[in-house]
Amino acid sequence: MGEFELIRNYFAAAPCAQPGEGVALGIGDDCALLAVAAGEQLAISTDTLVAGVHFPDGCDPFLLGQRALGVSASDLAAMGAKPLAFTLALTLPDVSAHWLQAFARGLNEMAQGCAMRLIGGDTTRGPLSLTLSVFGSVPAGLALTRGGARPGDLLCVGGPLGDAAGALPLVLNQRSTEASTTQALLARYWSPQPQLALGQALRGKATSALDISDGLLADCGHIALASGVRLLVERDKVPMSDPLLAFFGPEAALDAALSGGDDYRLAFTLPPSLLAELLGEGWPVCVIGRAVEGQGVVLIDEQGQDVTPSTRGYQHFRETR
Amino acid sequence: MGEFELIRNYFAAAPCAQPGEGVALGIGDDCALLAVAAGEQLAISTDTLVAGVHFPDGCDPFLLGQRALGVSASDLAAMGAKPLAFTLALTLPDVSAHWLQAFARGLNEMAQGCAMRLIGGDTTRGPLSLTLSVFGSVPAGLALTRGGARPGDLLCVGGPLGDAAGALPLVLNQRSTEASTTQALLARYWSPQPQLALGQALRGKATSALDISDGLLADCGHIALASGVRLLVERDKVPMSDPLLAFFGPEAALDAALSGGDDYRLAFTLPPSLLAELLGEGWPVCVIGRAVEGQGVVLIDEQGQDVTPSTRGYQHFRETR
Repeated sequence: MGEFELIRNYFAAAPCAQPGEGVALGIGDDCALLAVAAGEQLAISTDTLVAGVHFPDGCDPFLLGQRALGVSASDLAAMGAKPLAFTLALTLPDVSAHWLQAFARGLNEMAQGCAMRLIGGDTTRGPLSLTLSVFGSVPAGLALTRGGARPGDLLCVGGPLGDAAGALPLVLNQRSTEASTTQALLARYWSPQPQLALGQALRGKATSALDISDGLLADCGHIALASGVRLLVERDKVPMSDPLLAFFGPEAALDAALSGGDDYRLAFTLPPSLLAELLGEGWPVCVIGRAVEGQGVVLIDEQGQDVTPSTRGYQHFRETR
Repeated sequence: MGEFELIRNYFAAAPCAQPGEGVALGIGDDCALLAVAAGEQLAISTDTLVAGVHFPDGCDPFLLGQRALGVSASDLAAMGAKPLAFTLALTLPDVSAHWLQAFARGLNEMAQGCAMRLIGGDTTRGPLSLTLSVFGSVPAGLALTRGGARPGDLLCVGGPLGDAAGALPLVLNQRSTEASTTQALLARYWSPQPQLALGQALRGKATSALDISDGLLADCGHIALASGVRLLVERDKVPMSDPLLAFFGPEAALDAALSGGDDYRLAFTLPPSLLAELLGEGWPVCVIGRAVEGQGVVLIDEQGQDVTPSTRGYQHFRETR
């Protein structure tokens, strides 16, 4: 089966592949065409996932499709962009109709949840890997970058951290636990929910933002560096879920929350005066620290003592085994 | 060395990675930002190249970088789009400074020739492959698609065909020939020159267009299908270069021109009334046939007899060995 047929059979027929808002021309020509509304800019991000590095060989293709697009869409959330479309470059060792159907189903489910349309891509033969590019729109000048945090800003995250890292022993079948905990943690790993609405709500309010993929402390380091501030993270304010605490215990749970990565929650800085309004509107804003003069990221305890761990994060899937 | 350092060291420092026309934010945040001018649409194409499938293992990284971007930019030419930017997702088995420097140099040389800026991407560990996404702008409604050819239109190509296919025995060290022929053919393989200016000149004139990657007859089939016409290709009008004819002889040269692929020249249809103007302006327009009522692609001889070969094209690199 040729590459064109592959794409057509399994992806182009999906309802989300039809032209729609922002998509002037979808799959099937030399290029897709996006129409960007006047006053809007186009946000673009590209991620590659390699079998055995970013996900286990032989993992469920439905979950892989869902996770791959969720992870990519999270970059749009981090910019405050509204999702429009995505491309998929899929490299496969062989053609399995069952695998492709399940993968496309997972991809489409996440695409519908994010209101994104598949507009093109490539299918090639080779070792299993996928590269997704995602496209969203954001009003010119309102994109959330990493570079605007100012001393005095609050440091916030969009919800409990560490669940995806906590799920790894389950993903790898290294440990087991009760069904409800297993289900809660695996859902956070396989179906990350990009915080798209929160990102858009933070436009014009957050002074910096990113999505946590490499671990809270490592990613806060990106904000600190780009903004030229020091970020203080209060250890006792880092939010963690009950399933993670039950499965890992408080100490390992905190490690997972600080350094585990794969959270795909937003981290952002906010002038204190804007906090009440966001909380009043029901947005999940957890204050975990603040920006001060200086550089770097420091974890502090209740007394303000530096308790920063020596390792701070980000390991590819393979490196965690 | 982490993925961020990799990208920063070898790509982000390149002059073409700085924000410029159309690029509001380049490498280093969660997303890049493109500003699309009012009245313009964004053309997007994604291609993956896998070692051992699309290019020989161990090939010169400078040439690979040059070729990869040239091939991708050709899709922008085919839509009549003006190049703006590209992303690179690079998967590498290991980190070689020499390899990365040479690859980045080839990529940057082509990027400068096409006036495109690298705006982001991903670097991961795994079997060597690259996925490029290219972005260009085209006035709304003026993009060249495959679907507008009408009976009576002329079928044209942008220059001699078959050189890249003719170069394959040289790429694979299966045959040798005199230096000038070798150089001419290898240049067409390793440094495809996307016909960007021609594509933009054809806006509002060509009724359909694409770039020839799968072989003339196979790609004309895409136009015929999308437009609902039959395309007649006159065998004796297919343009071929002197080096190809010298190396292959007339019969094998014609095979390469009809079915060899990797040409990255434009094929397009044109109302006859517009031909003289384009030729007068010096554009490389070679008339090779015409569109008629019906479907499919037919190769005809001087008497109008059907001499269509039974195989018509497109083989991945691996399949040609």
